[in-house]
Amino acid sequence: MPETIIKIDLSESPYKNDMIHNRWHPDIPMVAWVKPGDDFIIETYDWTGGFIKNNESADDVRDIDLSIVHFLSGPIGVKGAEPGDLLVVDLLDVGALPESQWGFNGFFSKKNGGGFLTDHFPQAQKSIWDFKGIYTSSRHIPNVNFAGTIHPGLIGCLPDQKLLDTWNKREVDFIATNPDRVPPLANPPFPSTAHVGRAKGGTKSKAAMEGARTVPPREHGGNCDIKDLSRGSKIYFPVYVKGGGLSMGDLHFSQGDGEITFCGAIEMAGWLHLKVDLIKDGVKKYGIKNPIFKPSPLVPKYNDYLIFEGISVDEKGKQHYLDVHVAYRQACLNAIEYLKKFGFTGAQAYSILGTAPVQGHISGVVDIPNACATLWIPTEIFDFDIMPNSAGPSKKVKGGVKMPLSKDK
Amino acid sequence: MPETIIKIDLSESPYKNDMIHNRWHPDIPMVAWVKPGDDFIIETYDWTGGFIKNNESADDVRDIDLSIVHFLSGPIGVKGAEPGDLLVVDLLDVGALPESQWGFNGFFSKKNGGGFLTDHFPQAQKSIWDFKGIYTSSRHIPNVNFAGTIHPGLIGCLPDQKLLDTWNKREVDFIATNPDRVPPLANPPFPSTAHVGRAKGGTKSKAAMEGARTVPPREHGGNCDIKDLSRGSKIYFPVYVKGGGLSMGDLHFSQGDGEITFCGAIEMAGWLHLKVDLIKDGVKKYGIKNPIFKPSPLVPKYNDYLIFEGISVDEKGKQHYLDVHVAYRQACLNAIEYLKKFGFTGAQAYSILGTAPVQGHISGVVDIPNACATLWIPTEIFDFDIMPNSAGPSKKVKGGVKMPLSKDK
Amino acid sequence: MPETIIKIDLSESPYKNDMIHNRWHPDIPMVAWVKPGDDFIIETYDWTGGFIKNNESADDVRDIDLSIVHFLSGPIGVKGAEPGDLLVVDLLDVGALPESQWGFNGFFSKKNGGGFLTDHFPQAQKSIWDFKGIYTSSRHIPNVNFAGTIHPGLIGCLPDQKLLDTWNKREVDFIATNPDRVPPLANPPFPSTAHVGRAKGGTKSKAAMEGARTVPPREHGGNCDIKDLSRGSKIYFPVYVKGGGLSMGDLHFSQGDGEITFCGAIEMAGWLHLKVDLIKDGVKKYGIKNPIFKPSPLVPKYNDYLIFEGISVDEKGKQHYLDVHVAYRQACLNAIEYLKKFGFTGAQAYSILGTAPVQGHISGVVDIPNACATLWIPTEIFDFDIMPNSAGPSKKVKGGVKMPLSKDK
Amino acid sequence: MPETIIKIDLSESPYKNDMIHNRWHPDIPMVAWVKPGDDFIIETYDWTGGFIKNNESADDVRDIDLSIVHFLSGPIGVKGAEPGDLLVVDLLDVGALPESQWGFNGFFSKKNGGGFLTDHFPQAQKSIWDFKGIYTSSRHIPNVNFAGTIHPGLIGCLPDQKLLDTWNKREVDFIATNPDRVPPLANPPFPSTAHVGRAKGGTKSKAAMEGARTVPPREHGGNCDIKDLSRGSKIYFPVYVKGGGLSMGDLHFSQGDGEITFCGAIEMAGWLHLKVDLIKDGVKKYGIKNPIFKPSPLVPKYNDYLIFEGISVDEKGKQHYLDVHVAYRQACLNAIEYLKKFGFTGAQAYSILGTAPVQGHISGVVDIPNACATLWIPTEIFDFDIMPNSAGPSKKVKGGVKMPLSKDK
Repeated sequence: MPETIIKIDLSESPYKNDMIHNRWHPDIPMVAWVKPGDDFIIETYDWTGGFIKNNESADDVRDIDLSIVHFLSGPIGVKGAEPGDLLVVDLLDVGALPESQWGFNGFFSKKNGGGFLTDHFPQAQKSIWDFKGIYTSSRHIPNVNFAGTIHPGLIGCLPDQKLLDTWNKREVDFIATNPDRVPPLANPPFPSTAHVGRAKGGTKSKAAMEGARTVPPREHGGNCDIKDLSRGSKIYFPVYVKGGGLSMGDLHFSQGDGEITFCGAIEMAGWLHLKVDLIKDGVKKYGIKNPIFKPSPLVPKYNDYLIFEGISVDEKGKQHYLDVHVAYRQACLNAIEYLKKFGFTGAQAYSILGTAPVQGHISGVVDIPNACATLWIPTEIFDFDIMPNSAGPSKKVKGGVKMPLSKDK
Repeated sequence: MPETIIKIDLSESPYKNDMIHNRWHPDIPMVAWVKPGDDFIIETYDWTGGFIKNNESADDVRDIDLSIVHFLSGPIGVKGAEPGDLLVVDLLDVGALPESQWGFNGFFSKKNGGGFLTDHFPQAQKSIWDFKGIYTSSRHIPNVNFAGTIHPGLIGCLPDQKLLDTWNKREVDFIATNPDRVPPLANPPFPSTAHVGRAKGGTKSKAAMEGARTVPPREHGGNCDIKDLSRGSKIYFPVYVKGGGLSMGDLHFSQGDGEITFCGAIEMAGWLHLKVDLIKDGVKKYGIKNPIFKPSPLVPKYNDYLIFEGISVDEKGKQHYLDVHVAYRQACLNAIEYLKKFGFTGAQAYSILGTAPVQGHISGVVDIPNACATLWIPTEIFDFDIMPNSAGPSKKVKGGVKMPLSKDK
Repeated sequence: MPETIIKIDLSESPYKNDMIHNRWHPDIPMVAWVKPGDDFIIETYDWTGGFIKNNESADDVRDIDLSIVHFLSGPIGVKGAEPGDLLVVDLLDVGALPESQWGFNGFFSKKNGGGFLTDHFPQAQKSIWDFKGIYTSSRHIPNVNFAGTIHPGLIGCLPDQKLLDTWNKREVDFIATNPDRVPPLANPPFPSTAHVGRAKGGTKSKAAMEGARTVPPREHGGNCDIKDLSRGSKIYFPVYVKGGGLSMGDLHFSQGDGEITFCGAIEMAGWLHLKVDLIKDGVKKYGIKNPIFKPSPLVPKYNDYLIFEGISVDEKGKQHYLDVHVAYRQACLNAIEYLKKFGFTGAQAYSILGTAPVQGHISGVVDIPNACATLWIPTEIFDFDIMPNSAGPSKKVKGGVKMPLSKDK
Repeated sequence: MPETIIKIDLSESPYKNDMIHNRWHPDIPMVAWVKPGDDFIIETYDWTGGFIKNNESADDVRDIDLSIVHFLSGPIGVKGAEPGDLLVVDLLDVGALPESQWGFNGFFSKKNGGGFLTDHFPQAQKSIWDFKGIYTSSRHIPNVNFAGTIHPGLIGCLPDQKLLDTWNKREVDFIATNPDRVPPLANPPFPSTAHVGRAKGGTKSKAAMEGARTVPPREHGGNCDIKDLSRGSKIYFPVYVKGGGLSMGDLHFSQGDGEITFCGAIEMAGWLHLKVDLIKDGVKKYGIKNPIFKPSPLVPKYNDYLIFEGISVDEKGKQHYLDVHVAYRQACLNAIEYLKKFGFTGAQAYSILGTAPVQGHISGVVDIPNACATLWIPTEIFDFDIMPNSAGPSKKVKGGVKMPLSKDK
């Protein structure tokens, strides 16, 4: 096996591991250097650094301080990488840690993070998913079992100071347009919970003060939560600083398009086997702004779908203009109503959409005033037939199984 | 072959064919009746009723009166269908008319309809696509050839009066929020170009006055422009009026997710072979609001993709809140810049995104403040390798080929 | 639409159509000439020239004179084609004739042709399959419906005299090793039922006397019965005579690997839309002996299979040495026994294996003394679940449906 | 992680591990017991027990004593399993050992085992394949890289005495028909190298004397070398003895249909994560003779193929009767000639067919006298385009790379 250049200890706080960081800043020191052509292994915490537990209470989901996320492994320097290059990353393999064959999914309270359907599911809930080889299932959601499409939710290179400044100004200005919103419009730098790896002294203070939060995806990639960046894929990242500074984390055993449950996909600690290479001056050569990638040849072939449509008229009947966000929300709500007819609770149905390899397509986006989004549920993940028939649905779902819920305090 | 219950004559105006209509209204009379279990054939005009020609000028795209669209074939009554039922429609096959083996794609002028990227491509342009069996290519866009995913862009049942009233109020109120916008926010009823089929006398006037425009997808389905409603798929439509009143048109030989070029996919006249059935009281049984469907087993297996990311920061650097529309626009613009490096013009690249079986995914929609959308281009549609490599791109595209453009008058 | 260069009349005997032939001979005159780059349409009879009827009796299957087959359309000359070139044929599309939306499948009597399982099914039987758009089903085989993978069972170029002589010597010598076998080892030239197209006078006599029978696939391709030569595929044929002389027929709406029922796949009359091109001197450049091809991107994605194994120990327990034929026969017999448990008759199960898109794989062929073959049945073609479960199988198949059988006279 | 119930030590001879055996016999004692519903892990040696080394010489391939193979892990008892039951085995995951991330492929000398093309490649040769995450490539075969379809080549339950006696009689009688053949027709029991696990005393002697060799696949499954029994698949095995007695080994990182190189696929030591269950009396309920299985949803989607045909006329022009073995050999030889045009050596091309996920189909098996077999090479495994074009092939393969060859002594 290739060398493991970043190791973690699940029994230890990620704040104690100086090869971990939870902010983006150009001054965070590289923790390891590799050469183009090298392959190596990196271990990562789950995005919360172990805060969410494998138990029967959603209190941890309700109570988490979201300023601590995401705990990333890195940054890794690649010799010869210079601003303007493309860093080519092969995700040769990704997996869970042998000692931690489980993951979590949940909904944050509307008062602490929320999620895509927070108005419909405003309380903290959680489900635990066990991994059995390539498959996963949850003791909190019966009748569902599927192969994982394992991927890092978050991966990218360090920004340079200019790009960082652009981010901070853009987002801080944006927050200022509605500073009291719950959940907030965005998250500004927040030094008190910042972990800036091996930065010391003044650099440490600067990085903590200025470091961009890791939640949003941005020009460098970052927290894209793209389920298709799965093991076997090849990604081309823009390089902004000397050495690149590749960091990653937030591993998912599986996720539906949109990661609508926010907390999050099936979240896990794990490891990545990576190979790196460079395309010199590739950003300009190929006109690259955001990362581009080639998906893996090895993804579950769940090809039979039941597809739900949604349009950009919201739950209250209000018209929105070509708003795909609203349209996708309607498609999701339509699917949840449908799945409830078979005996799932609404929360279970919502969890399925967040965790299983469902697809979310931008189907029509020009037919004023309505966007049309579609949600694709693979029928093979259920152990019964979910297609409509003339007899109507019957209660197929094993009863008496509930997802833990913790009410707001 | 089964009976063709609606025939068209391409040499004749669709206004002269009383089995065609271009508005949605419950009082438009059924033009044919079928029984559950029947299969039959329907012919359709292209959505503009033949206005766009197979030639070298985009004047028709520039000058079209968009109040005439879409010319639909129907409505067809299904015996026994009652409000609350689900009408099950098998799209057994769909094709182009033998005498019309071509289609068009284009961008409307920003002053007359616009499109997803109208600020970047504000002038009318057009490309013509020839069909050769299952494949299509365009004399205006070199180096591209692909198998069609043939489908109706528009299909659905007649609304009842209550649903129609909801639509009209919703959209007219919405227009009122910015009545002078170009392009407009939505399109109100417009009697002077209405074609309400076999409606006569007072019914005709009422239907023309009140008839909902066909552009947006709505609760009944309608103009969803979902490329995956392709031949071989099975769709479940809510029924609102006695007999259902199924109408359809706007056939596409192929389309990319979003139909971003708006004029439109690869638009064609053609025929559909349908089978109908009923699930009595299915709307309530399954909790259906919008149509649901099962996709075809017979779609081109273009499985190798180059994927572009976009986030909800717009072209000017402005932050938007989890706005998938903006994010998808960025992914599209990123792809266009990339394709230009191989020698395509921007307009050609835009056309490819509108016509080829590209996928648009809602990848991440919870990571405040940025949505992440991905655009998937199947690499096999090009006759050269579009993947990045260390040598950089070379001009692979045959030069000297342009898409017709007609400047605003 | 492109020109139809060979037309047929289903009400007329193929012997009356001089653009049809049923033997391979270099002197059969070209019936049409095309240029590299041309696309055109060809109509074909079913392989028996209309002998098998859409009715409820298998008498025609029992009584057919098999020396009349296969009725091929052609030969077509391609300008500039010379021996040693590769003729590149795009199967742009293939379909049934509009007036003939059905096909047949059957088993020949062991006394007249036989088939792969003729010892188990020695009597003539027949099933009729109706086409509904992309789908087919049979009134003789309930609970099965699937999308067609339409293809020509037989296509290839004319042999030159030397190749023809090789074939005739090889096969006549082979027959001589067991001349009285029933069914025979091979079929020698047989002038009395030969149809040699436009050949006249002495050429006609010579071609009829020497013309190779069309049943076996040979070096030029010919009757390969490869289900994957489906519409959308691209084939590279060796050229032996000036002009190439491309002929084809034996269209199938669908077929399982092996075409085990022999009479045959789902056999139909139909049309092909072809495009031709040349690779000059391609046989030598690429070291080609038999045709090679690239499959279509448009084939039904039936990806969930139940797979049966067979080894090269025959039904009587006799050991054979790495014999894939015997192993595949066992896999087929195993599948038939399994399907019978759900209520299919043996004949119906056999027919499903001959018609549906089942795969036959040469899985292991070196582990002395047993070859291992696998038969893959797509589970989605049944309207019930065929997977094993702890409750055991139940009779799901609609009773009282039989396949016509005609006993030997 | 679940319990590892069979462990191995790669530094130790498998003969020293009493949880390993290399013969099939009902009296080999169970080495572990599990319950229906349990999941657990088993480690396995490579099929030669470590004889073949990761080095630059094929001496080991030439010199191996093939009477030692295959070293299997087991047998495992399943509580409650009785003769006539079906043992349901979920291959939850399969992988290489972390300390052994490589595998071998080779051709045996014709004098010691041979292989499918032994007349063309009569000398011992070897290639070593390195694993990098989901991918593999060989330092001996340039320009090729692909994702593994990991699977056990050999898995099955212990035979009862009656079935064992049938095997031994059948094969010994068969050998007697040509006892001096090289390579032999089959392999009789051979006590001197037998490893019968924990059998002691008289039982040990009896098991060694009678134990069936593990090379051929048989009614119980065994050495089927089916590449599609990959991780994620579900297999239904007939049970013959109380407890079942499940054993397995011969893990492959990847294999082409037929495993034509015989030594073998990409052979490796590794581990399996299994789950077991029972269908009581399933053999009779479902009419099962050989195992059946459902393939994994997680296999590489290499869907673009170049396909080679072969017919049952052998290399010397001799006619064979519907002989799929001969036909597949021709397809393989045709593919090798083709690949050589790009610069591969014949041995490298042969190795690719044995290791990459190529498909071998029984395409036509009734068109007397010729069977037609097809060999499907996924084009995506090469780093250059292998499709034909008008310019002809160019030497794309990196020169100077050879596979080790060891001449017969």
